[in-house]
Amino acid sequence: MVQPFQDNYPDDYSHCFGCGRLNDKGLHIKSYWEGEEAVAVHVPDPHHIGFPGYVYGGLIASLVDCHAIGTAAAAAHGAQDLEAGAHLPLTYVTASLKVDYLKPTPMGHPIELRARIDEIKGRKTVVSVTVTVNTVVCARGAVVAVTMPDTMVPGR
Amino acid sequence: MVQPFQDNYPDDYSHCFGCGRLNDKGLHIKSYWEGEEAVAVHVPDPHHIGFPGYVYGGLIASLVDCHAIGTAAAAAHGAQDLEAGAHLPLTYVTASLKVDYLKPTPMGHPIELRARIDEIKGRKTVVSVTVTVNTVVCARGAVVAVTMPDTMVPGR
Repeated sequence: MVQPFQDNYPDDYSHCFGCGRLNDKGLHIKSYWEGEEAVAVHVPDPHHIGFPGYVYGGLIASLVDCHAIGTAAAAAHGAQDLEAGAHLPLTYVTASLKVDYLKPTPMGHPIELRARIDEIKGRKTVVSVTVTVNTVVCARGAVVAVTMPDTMVPGR
Repeated sequence: MVQPFQDNYPDDYSHCFGCGRLNDKGLHIKSYWEGEEAVAVHVPDPHHIGFPGYVYGGLIASLVDCHAIGTAAAAAHGAQDLEAGAHLPLTYVTASLKVDYLKPTPMGHPIELRARIDEIKGRKTVVSVTVTVNTVVCARGAVVAVTMPDTMVPGR
């Protein structure tokens, strides 16, 4: 069975509030390949509002961040589907996150994120993300992911 | 008594997950003038981690966003201190959010955000933010805030 990228992170890297399977209070963002794009869908909790009727921009930034980081890690693994138990070999952190909010994102609908790899160069991977609700692109994100510095690796 | 910017938002605008005083599950970010800078301090909850020992980047993006938006609204009100019951006249939304993560942000310490107004031009206010823990600048943010479109104003 194909697993979401984030479920292939080793346990030590699986506590992230956005996407860690071991964070009981987290968002549990799950990303999968769909051709050359990676897709994730998230339904916001009612309290994740910015203004009544609209999604909180910080949530959108969080979704963009974790989806892009997962996509960078999966791309480093190779374009093949990830199978259960396969561990992603490299772990990425965010060097830079940019989100352009094009339209207010309405609450109460699934938010679809689609990510593409723009560039892989050494330790750095650049990922672009679209944020869509009901076929309307509400935001665009750009993330610069870099492999985790040794100083952050648990146990080192 | 001087109130944080966000406590001067009218009720209809006070449900934001990041800074709304009426959001029971929110982060309750509170911002105040300190000279020409606006300051907010936030202690992250234990579940807001990215990796063990480090703060989740999406939380940092959320703090930057709401602190900058509050600063833009307060600057539109005027540089004077806000008094209890004073309502901010204009409400802003985020057009663009950029965060550069310079160093991993350690957990377990107050995160200090300092914002400055870079530019006010028509509907647009540009705000820069530093994110500091224990005197170390861990991230820098840049936010383009715009006055809320009429289509988002509750009741219109």
